[in-house]
Amino acid sequence: MIKGILFDLDDTLYNSSEFVNIARREAVKSMIDAGLDIEFEEAMKILDKIIKDKGSNYGKHFDDLVKAVLGKYDPKIIATGIITYHNVKVALLRPYPHTIKTLMELKAMGLKLGVLTDGLTIKQWEKLIRLGIHPFFDEVITSEEFGLGKPHLEFFKYGLKRMNLKPEEVIYVGDRVDKDIIPAKKLGIISVRIIQGKYKDMEDNISDYKIKNLTELIDIIKELNKK
Amino acid sequence: MIKGILFDLDDTLYNSSEFVNIARREAVKSMIDAGLDIEFEEAMKILDKIIKDKGSNYGKHFDDLVKAVLGKYDPKIIATGIITYHNVKVALLRPYPHTIKTLMELKAMGLKLGVLTDGLTIKQWEKLIRLGIHPFFDEVITSEEFGLGKPHLEFFKYGLKRMNLKPEEVIYVGDRVDKDIIPAKKLGIISVRIIQGKYKDMEDNISDYKIKNLTELIDIIKELNKK
Repeated sequence: MIKGILFDLDDTLYNSSEFVNIARREAVKSMIDAGLDIEFEEAMKILDKIIKDKGSNYGKHFDDLVKAVLGKYDPKIIATGIITYHNVKVALLRPYPHTIKTLMELKAMGLKLGVLTDGLTIKQWEKLIRLGIHPFFDEVITSEEFGLGKPHLEFFKYGLKRMNLKPEEVIYVGDRVDKDIIPAKKLGIISVRIIQGKYKDMEDNISDYKIKNLTELIDIIKELNKK
Repeated sequence: MIKGILFDLDDTLYNSSEFVNIARREAVKSMIDAGLDIEFEEAMKILDKIIKDKGSNYGKHFDDLVKAVLGKYDPKIIATGIITYHNVKVALLRPYPHTIKTLMELKAMGLKLGVLTDGLTIKQWEKLIRLGIHPFFDEVITSEEFGLGKPHLEFFKYGLKRMNLKPEEVIYVGDRVDKDIIPAKKLGIISVRIIQGKYKDMEDNISDYKIKNLTELIDIIKELNKK
């Protein structure tokens, strides 16, 4: 009997890859306009390397980009990039077309809903609130809060504990085979992979279900709860 | 001969006190709506004390407020406050009505313009860019960058050096007697006090000039440069 669903956030409930990609590109364009003397594609290459080396939650990507290009700190250019990134975030952050409708139906079915996500707590909450979907979730669990992220089984176990449910009562929905599907399956949680975002072409012979959009979850749960 | 003008930023070029006051109040209202269980005026009192104790550039005012009220960290409520504060900032940050017109005239008169401000470099630049007035300034000088702020005379001396001007060639425009007018006068810089913002009622027998809005600067400079 399925009693609850745990969701990954980025690229599962909204199009994170596309949004971040656009926001970074627009930020770099505005920085070039503000005096960052470099070709756009060249700047993107340097920025991508900084993000790869320092991780996506490192707070000084634009500082490092400016230093790499100009050999010095230029607060005007950095502030321009930050403002543009933020403006794009406010404009573009919205759920996948089917997300809200599906979350409403799942709540109406009496299911407990949670988010289990890697990331900084306040940053992930900010996304949920800006997306307008935070009221649907009984639990929001972040790797920062727990101290350990995906694919660590302890993190998923902690998620189950917070939901107060057993593995066989829970579905985990995520977009990545390595970080979402494999650890869920190892614990006996039913795994649903959403084929969206930058990991949609990952090889996958393991997910219990594959879906293109979240509405398909409804039938999966009805089917499972008939048994 | 006046060749340049150094401006304070907050409450001199835009209405900082009013904007910050509205942003904080709206943020607290949204946090109460998100579950911060306290009366509004009581919450504002606690927040004011936190800001007074920790300073306005301490990054965790809302975290501390939530902890003080609920006895625990609640990321949903904190993120709600941050989002509201930011939304109000984007909506309300604009120059005083006469600022842009005056800056254009001063540039047309061939004057060098600078900002000499206490605060974090990126944060002050972000304000200048959002206000749309950053292209007018030849120099933007912050206390964070210099390592020492107002009313230290060294900071004003550094400002003169960056402007490449002598004290008698410069006017300093600010809203505070203690932090703006007194140090400027000590160095022989002509001091103009703008009677705006939360310090407008400060006792003042010392400013060389007092103005209600920035356009009055034009006549002061014309008068001084006739001599």
